[in-house]
Amino acid sequence: MTTCPLPHEETERVLLGHGSGGRLMAELIDDVIARELGTHGPLEDAALLDGTDLVVSTDGFVVTPRFFPGGDIGSLAVHGTVNDLAMRGARPIALTLAFVVEEGLPIEELRQVTRSAAKAAQDAGVPIVTGDTKVVGRGAADGLYVTTTGIGVRLPRARPSAAAGVVGDVVLLSGPIGAHGTAILSAREDLGFEAEIVSDSRPLHRLVAAMVEAGGRDVHVLRDPTRGGLASALNELAEASRVAVEVVEDDVPVPPAVAAACELLGLDPFHVANEGCLVAFVAPDSAPAVLAAMRARPEGAQARVVGRVLDGPAGRVTARTTIGSTRIVDMLIGEQLPRIC
Amino acid sequence: MTTCPLPHEETERVLLGHGSGGRLMAELIDDVIARELGTHGPLEDAALLDGTDLVVSTDGFVVTPRFFPGGDIGSLAVHGTVNDLAMRGARPIALTLAFVVEEGLPIEELRQVTRSAAKAAQDAGVPIVTGDTKVVGRGAADGLYVTTTGIGVRLPRARPSAAAGVVGDVVLLSGPIGAHGTAILSAREDLGFEAEIVSDSRPLHRLVAAMVEAGGRDVHVLRDPTRGGLASALNELAEASRVAVEVVEDDVPVPPAVAAACELLGLDPFHVANEGCLVAFVAPDSAPAVLAAMRARPEGAQARVVGRVLDGPAGRVTARTTIGSTRIVDMLIGEQLPRIC
Ligand SMILES: Nc1ncnc2c1ncn2[C@@H]1O[C@H](COP(=O)(O)OP(=O)(O)OP(=O)(O)O)[C@@H](O)[C@H]1O
Ligand SMILES: Nc1ncnc2c1ncn2[C@@H]1O[C@H](COP(=O)(O)OP(=O)(O)OP(=O)(O)O)[C@@H](O)[C@H]1O
Ligand SMILES: [Mg+2]
Ligand SMILES: [Mg+2]
Ligand SMILES: [Mg+2]
Ligand SMILES: [Mg+2]
Ligand SMILES: [Mg+2]
Ligand SMILES: [Mg+2]
Repeated sequence: MTTCPLPHEETERVLLGHGSGGRLMAELIDDVIARELGTHGPLEDAALLDGTDLVVSTDGFVVTPRFFPGGDIGSLAVHGTVNDLAMRGARPIALTLAFVVEEGLPIEELRQVTRSAAKAAQDAGVPIVTGDTKVVGRGAADGLYVTTTGIGVRLPRARPSAAAGVVGDVVLLSGPIGAHGTAILSAREDLGFEAEIVSDSRPLHRLVAAMVEAGGRDVHVLRDPTRGGLASALNELAEASRVAVEVVEDDVPVPPAVAAACELLGLDPFHVANEGCLVAFVAPDSAPAVLAAMRARPEGAQARVVGRVLDGPAGRVTARTTIGSTRIVDMLIGEQLPRIC
Repeated sequence: MTTCPLPHEETERVLLGHGSGGRLMAELIDDVIARELGTHGPLEDAALLDGTDLVVSTDGFVVTPRFFPGGDIGSLAVHGTVNDLAMRGARPIALTLAFVVEEGLPIEELRQVTRSAAKAAQDAGVPIVTGDTKVVGRGAADGLYVTTTGIGVRLPRARPSAAAGVVGDVVLLSGPIGAHGTAILSAREDLGFEAEIVSDSRPLHRLVAAMVEAGGRDVHVLRDPTRGGLASALNELAEASRVAVEVVEDDVPVPPAVAAACELLGLDPFHVANEGCLVAFVAPDSAPAVLAAMRARPEGAQARVVGRVLDGPAGRVTARTTIGSTRIVDMLIGEQLPRIC
């Protein structure tokens, strides 16, 4: 990944693009947050606590609108955190739920979001054990923000890490891309589609358990391509593992309604956020068994091989296109899709 | 605690007072959040995970201004969560740090807050292991909100719980009250005081470790009287333990500058938020040893006995005054001090 530094004037304040999951965000996290915290190493979805089998992850949710086809801010917050634990090979054991509420929010709406979070947690088999509620004045928030934290226990044979991809690994994708981001955008403005696009928001920890059961330590890398989409996830993984990645463009499933919405909105489906699919790098010997295990579950019914890990420049991601040519798959740069999750 | 239901019109939207740590907030949590989550039992500072010795706590921080005498939103977020773990007798082992940033926040300010959180965590001996950064548009937040979650391991002999107070217990207070809330309010408006009031924001886990070392299971109840102040904390504890509590008003230390600020602002120091003191209910046999252990530490140098747990109506909190009379110490009702933490 080559970095184009922005002029100083533009970088001295936080921009919307700093939150979009792409290159600008990676720079902010590297240059400001990781530097001040003294943290190192590749960016993982969740942290493994030293000397334990415990995994921890946290995410804030600021999605607008709060209710959308396929979910709401409450279910999304639960799924997002369950999934980040799963991406480190962990079985979630507890969640926390923190609200920042804007004065004036209908209490009924707070109730609905809480109910939805509770249901999502129950369906995932994880208790919400504690939480917090703060209220700010009118105009100091946009309705409701939710932050969830999850604690998990690593599955016995699971050792996935963003840095563990090796040359020759098979790149698997658990399902079609682009549904979450386009569902949110169509909920924001009436795009006049026939078919409603429904977010793919769902928990992936059972899928991961099945994959680890089938492939054990051969499941090298797991990542849910959320903000920044599949393109940003692959770039981060290729960077962290110091490898190149090639995907076959036509093998990456994009539902027709998503493709149409992306065309209308001028978006690349590779950059659109997902909340219910994962990408995995798996050793070739185990890839068939892992793929079969994925397909045996509803969340993975459409799983497929979409590419390979190559011995090329570290961090380079390419797509082979229908006409046989190859294009560079870049990270999202910035301001494309604010408040998508 | 008697409840005065508000007319329906007033309760159907979230009010600022729902976040102030008093009775309105307790009602919102009981009627909406706990009901939807199906959680029961007394309100604890942190949750003990079933079948483990792990304790988890989360808090959002929305304090304004973000920088104040004695700290900032970053150090406060670390201290607040460390302290909620400590109140369940846990040694903190990891923290998470989630930001919601308003577009336009100077990056330098994000850096300072991150640095301050990092320093507070380092001073407390707890690593910040993971985090999250979301950006919302101008006007959709007020600069920066921070949510921290902490994971801790229960100290071997510690079993404190809000419900574990028993008649005869001695009520201990670790230090003077009212500094945090009045420091924030004086930072908001120039009150023209000679002496600057400095927040008491500090970590209390080492103090708790010393108390448990001295008193073991005789340390029945621990609580940090944050939003809602000492009065609300005592009411919650008396309610949860089904006991009455009496404090001796003159034995509760209120620094002169705090008392003056409260008088000017029309506040009761018993209702003002603290971020660096704790109240404990301890069995009488162990109280002298626990008190001595507290006084041996800087955070507890001014610790003292302030009252007793009585065999009276469950949830009743009274203060014996200088003139020998007794007054009811009520929970804060509502809207007094928004965004104090
Ligand atoms: N959104 C929520 N979801 C689940 N539980 C909640 C939520 N908000 C509050 N609670 C629960 O209500 C109880 C009281 O929380 P509260 O935030 O008042 O305690 P605290 O963190 O000790 O105080 P403070 O936030 O002032 O530091 C806790 O048991 C907490 O788990
Ligand atoms: N405020 C912060 N403090 C500490 N670490 C942070 C902070 N913000 C981000 N990080 C770290 O940066 C990395 C990337 O975080 P990011 O939020 O992009 O991942 P994610 O949660 O998997 O994606 P998403 O938030 O889109 O679901 C993680 O390792 C995270 O711990
Ligand atoms: Mg993730
Ligand atoms: Mg995430
Ligand atoms: Mg709290
Ligand atoms: Mg507390
Ligand atoms: Mg707290
Ligand atoms: Mg995140």
